[in-house]
Amino acid sequence: MAKPVAVEVYNPNGKYRVVSTKPMPGTRWINLLVDQGCRVEICHLTKTILSVEDIIDLIGNKCDGVIGQLTEDWGETLFSALSKAGGKAFSNMAVGYNNVDVEAANKYGIAVGNTPGVLTETTAELAASLSLAAARRIVEADGFMRAGLYEGWLPHLFVGNLLKGQTVGVIGAGRIGSAYARMMVEGFKMNLIYFDLYQSTRLEKFVTAYGQFLKANGEQPVTWKRASSMEEVLREADLISLHPVLDKTTYHLVNKERLAMMKKEAILVNCSRGPVIDEVALVNHLRENPMFRVGLDVFEEEPFMKPGLADMKNAIVVPHIASASKWTREGMATLAALNVLGRIKGYPIWSDPNRVDPFLNENASPPNASPSIVNSKALGLPVSKL
Amino acid sequence: MAKPVAVEVYNPNGKYRVVSTKPMPGTRWINLLVDQGCRVEICHLTKTILSVEDIIDLIGNKCDGVIGQLTEDWGETLFSALSKAGGKAFSNMAVGYNNVDVEAANKYGIAVGNTPGVLTETTAELAASLSLAAARRIVEADGFMRAGLYEGWLPHLFVGNLLKGQTVGVIGAGRIGSAYARMMVEGFKMNLIYFDLYQSTRLEKFVTAYGQFLKANGEQPVTWKRASSMEEVLREADLISLHPVLDKTTYHLVNKERLAMMKKEAILVNCSRGPVIDEVALVNHLRENPMFRVGLDVFEEEPFMKPGLADMKNAIVVPHIASASKWTREGMATLAALNVLGRIKGYPIWSDPNRVDPFLNENASPPNASPSIVNSKALGLPVSKL
Repeated sequence: MAKPVAVEVYNPNGKYRVVSTKPMPGTRWINLLVDQGCRVEICHLTKTILSVEDIIDLIGNKCDGVIGQLTEDWGETLFSALSKAGGKAFSNMAVGYNNVDVEAANKYGIAVGNTPGVLTETTAELAASLSLAAARRIVEADGFMRAGLYEGWLPHLFVGNLLKGQTVGVIGAGRIGSAYARMMVEGFKMNLIYFDLYQSTRLEKFVTAYGQFLKANGEQPVTWKRASSMEEVLREADLISLHPVLDKTTYHLVNKERLAMMKKEAILVNCSRGPVIDEVALVNHLRENPMFRVGLDVFEEEPFMKPGLADMKNAIVVPHIASASKWTREGMATLAALNVLGRIKGYPIWSDPNRVDPFLNENASPPNASPSIVNSKALGLPVSKL
Repeated sequence: MAKPVAVEVYNPNGKYRVVSTKPMPGTRWINLLVDQGCRVEICHLTKTILSVEDIIDLIGNKCDGVIGQLTEDWGETLFSALSKAGGKAFSNMAVGYNNVDVEAANKYGIAVGNTPGVLTETTAELAASLSLAAARRIVEADGFMRAGLYEGWLPHLFVGNLLKGQTVGVIGAGRIGSAYARMMVEGFKMNLIYFDLYQSTRLEKFVTAYGQFLKANGEQPVTWKRASSMEEVLREADLISLHPVLDKTTYHLVNKERLAMMKKEAILVNCSRGPVIDEVALVNHLRENPMFRVGLDVFEEEPFMKPGLADMKNAIVVPHIASASKWTREGMATLAALNVLGRIKGYPIWSDPNRVDPFLNENASPPNASPSIVNSKALGLPVSKL
């Protein structure tokens, strides 16, 4: 039997060889590379996570750059192999890069790219989607319907929350937290309470202005409050979404004691990082409080869930899809490809990795720059003046 | 063995006997009846739909009023029985009353109540919830996660839509359609296209003002357009929600031909009435277009689904829970109870059944009026001057 085709090749005679360890959404990233003289090879192995050995095979003897994934272990071994193959650049198709040993990349002079600037709205929309699905018990109700259990309208069947007029709590009001807060405030006329070490002046000003706008239109204004503690948010909010960074201070931020502070019928959403919640404590809390509901995109020991979580009807669990919109994923693929291409071509580094609109305009050529290289200082790479 | 307790009684010595055919959410409705001298009996039979015979048993020899459900057949037989028992009032716990033969009620001088005025926001929020769940494939993704199929982050896993900047189409821009349109426009910065026989001046004005507000805050304004045909909405929108009334002109409004006009990756939501969609055609369309997604709260032959629908991964199906928020369902129970109480007490009829806030204020006694009686003219009942 023939060996299954594991690599898809575009522009076989291209001067530079760029490898993607996974197929990525869209075709623009391929076209951009091909147009600038790259041979593009895309690995189609069906296993979810490639091993270091798999990637060494893909790098081969001659490889100018690799686009990889957060699930891969990019350390000494791979950077050494890439360097020997003449490679200059690696980019994660992700914002994060905790899978990358940046010191090792520095040692071999390899640029490390990531893809910020396109995830904010898509992630906030997933948090909103989980909030609304939990509020109206959509997954549970869908299972009931599909199982043929529906016999007729009943006064008590899947009664959930009306969000309008309730309070939304946001813990961590950075880009994503603020975008989410606005979706719930503007879309559903919820009042906002937030906790963040830094004052989110921009968010406060916007919600104030929006409240005045509603009032001027003869409607009930919305309100906002910056909480003096996280506990204040947990106690007062009907719906709480977590958007902190993960560090020592936020590990198990939501634990047994803090769950106990929340309203019995509150909704908790986590699209940040799994270890922000003590998942074992959460499972117990869900068991003891059937009207407490949770929407989770991330888990403490991904890809696994703690025992019992998969059986909870008051949980909605999705497999880390916060950035999974077509627009964002195609944008991430484009940015990852341009990170690698820019380094191969010797282009400078874009000055603000969060303002990447010029790279995403499908009707124009992208700027001659790498959109986001995390070790540009260590490598002494020049910054674009654009 | 003892017969199971099928009736729960409050205030056994009350002067007036009021029966509810089903337990209803909250306790305020019970307290209001009890406080005004009613004996309240709540049927706890576990069967979903009570038969005419069951209800005749509940009415018995002496019954002043009944609160019933849309699933019950209120015609000659029941109104005759209620009249013989001295009854003066029946109220559905529902806005609709197509289960009621109003002529028969008129014949026996029995007032027929319904419960409008509390469903708009809750129904619109369900439509928004289904829209967001379909956009991000929440039910499908939850099933994948629970089945233990998640092995690690993948670029193509459950890629959905970013709603921001896309177009929301609303067919039928009455109260609920307009409320939904605003949720999607304000919450997710979608542009609006709507079709309605009547111009929705209020919605247009609001979205115009909101667009100006965004612009004044340095953001991209949203736009709106009134379509000249329903087809224009179907062709142009990325997300379409149906909010028409059901009549001969809207039966199978969405059929095979109209489905074919829609974008291949569009999302269709129906929280109006089942027969507005040709469900057999929809199942075929879902099969042929895996990225076309649908969120359904209602079905053509409720409580059943057409063959194949329950197997479609690109469908979300929930059992007619559009009004299922605690606030709305408790409000419906209160209004239904006050409809019956008002007639028993000889109170007048409230002048605007859609403006029922005074009846819902938990910190004050409700007005001495029946909130909504659909045959008040036929019965010559006086209207409240409040």
